[in-house]
Amino acid sequence: MLTIKRLSLEDARNLIAGGRAKAEDIGVPMCIAITDESGQLIAFERMDGGKVTSTIIAQDKAYTAAGAKRTTQSYSEASQPGKPAYGIHSAIGGRLLVVAGGIPVLIDGEVVGAVGFSSGSPAQDAECAQAGIDALLSQIPGR
Amino acid sequence: MLTIKRLSLEDARNLIAGGRAKAEDIGVPMCIAITDESGQLIAFERMDGGKVTSTIIAQDKAYTAAGAKRTTQSYSEASQPGKPAYGIHSAIGGRLLVVAGGIPVLIDGEVVGAVGFSSGSPAQDAECAQAGIDALLSQIPGR
Amino acid sequence: MLTIKRLSLEDARNLIAGGRAKAEDIGVPMCIAITDESGQLIAFERMDGGKVTSTIIAQDKAYTAAGAKRTTQSYSEASQPGKPAYGIHSAIGGRLLVVAGGIPVLIDGEVVGAVGFSSGSPAQDAECAQAGIDALLSQIPGR
Amino acid sequence: MLTIKRLSLEDARNLIAGGRAKAEDIGVPMCIAITDESGQLIAFERMDGGKVTSTIIAQDKAYTAAGAKRTTQSYSEASQPGKPAYGIHSAIGGRLLVVAGGIPVLIDGEVVGAVGFSSGSPAQDAECAQAGIDALLSQIPGR
Repeated sequence: MLTIKRLSLEDARNLIAGGRAKAEDIGVPMCIAITDESGQLIAFERMDGGKVTSTIIAQDKAYTAAGAKRTTQSYSEASQPGKPAYGIHSAIGGRLLVVAGGIPVLIDGEVVGAVGFSSGSPAQDAECAQAGIDALLSQIPGR
Repeated sequence: MLTIKRLSLEDARNLIAGGRAKAEDIGVPMCIAITDESGQLIAFERMDGGKVTSTIIAQDKAYTAAGAKRTTQSYSEASQPGKPAYGIHSAIGGRLLVVAGGIPVLIDGEVVGAVGFSSGSPAQDAECAQAGIDALLSQIPGR
Repeated sequence: MLTIKRLSLEDARNLIAGGRAKAEDIGVPMCIAITDESGQLIAFERMDGGKVTSTIIAQDKAYTAAGAKRTTQSYSEASQPGKPAYGIHSAIGGRLLVVAGGIPVLIDGEVVGAVGFSSGSPAQDAECAQAGIDALLSQIPGR
Repeated sequence: MLTIKRLSLEDARNLIAGGRAKAEDIGVPMCIAITDESGQLIAFERMDGGKVTSTIIAQDKAYTAAGAKRTTQSYSEASQPGKPAYGIHSAIGGRLLVVAGGIPVLIDGEVVGAVGFSSGSPAQDAECAQAGIDALLSQIPGR
């Protein structure tokens, strides 16, 4: 039998709050998705002005990061023409996102969930996703 | 040019909070989705213990209620065998939900968004969805 | 080699205009889709106030009526529990609509396209679809 | 509560008429789709001779331009190999189009809908889409 660590809804809210604060700082209304370690949605917020297309893309970035246990940005590099994962971006009906903004949340080396941001540039999306994770980790004693 | 009223993220949070309080009262951890009047996701929360399948179903109940401007429960009645809307439940790739728990939010007679609950019985889902709407409307002056 | 008769864009506009006049008469803003004999979209209009879900359903009603060369209402009857076409409503990813409102356009016994209406009751949808066809046929000399 | 501006059906017809005039000028029968600001279809016309594949692509170009609040051409540039949005073209089940021809309609800096053209070269599609927007804006007093 396995024992799995997984983000709670309270953790998910903290991830959203931390990332949203960064999004407000940089002035980009974001779509923010938090999934558990299986890529299943826990929480989502579209800030007023966030993009309609990003309601799906944010969820799929988090799904990809949790499910594949890696950042979507790492896939961007690995899936360029001539690289080993070339073509992976259309896998799973196009849900496998290879654009930066999806980052797994790791606790003690284990993926416990993931964060997906979308509506800004990929670099902005990734910056806000990391800010969400930093905010969560700062609230866990001993980290 | 048309002028449309739409739920803000703050409104969506109030809808979730009102529905979640009812879900806690009845002891059923719910998946809760709020969409705008076009059926596009604004906010979502899966209470700890909510069902994985309900992460999708809650979103599609809200999409249906907003997009079709009616409760999913009304579709349940209209789509029974022998009734006029029989068979509608598999429309739009199966996203058109005919199970109770999706309710449009109306302000001055116009649909401004919708609420979708899933994880309990359909009656429990609808009860919590209505509680969310009641909570929102009680906070709008003059209603 | 086959020779196929097919609705022109001008025919499609006449179908829309005829059906829209009926929709205005009965006070129901409709989504109206016209396809060619292969079920491929020629023209579409969502009257102000038409339903978002109906943007898809109207297209799929017309697709079904053209592709299957029969009204979607006839499928409603044939697909009831215990009937031969039971279960057909989820075919083609749910695009095969068995709710009234899709009617093929026949010229000299051949299907040349189809009309799909959605946003009212199935009976209203079918009434408007037929009104569109009647309007088109009244404009063709000798009919 | 938010207040949103959205194209009416009359606006959509004007967008189509303006773009179709340009398509006739350059001799390319086009598929023309108009969506609201949420990417939901308002109106569509396939000029006689327009391409079957373009019936979908035109709709998805307009969906992308409205939902992402940018031209599909801008995505073409940003999603080339080595660029930040590389791989985005298969997102949302492949609906996110990165080929020129989808342009959002802006009024007072807000997206109120979008235009999608398909059947010509991407440059021709974009030229006709812009012509549609120019025609609409010329009819609004004070612009």
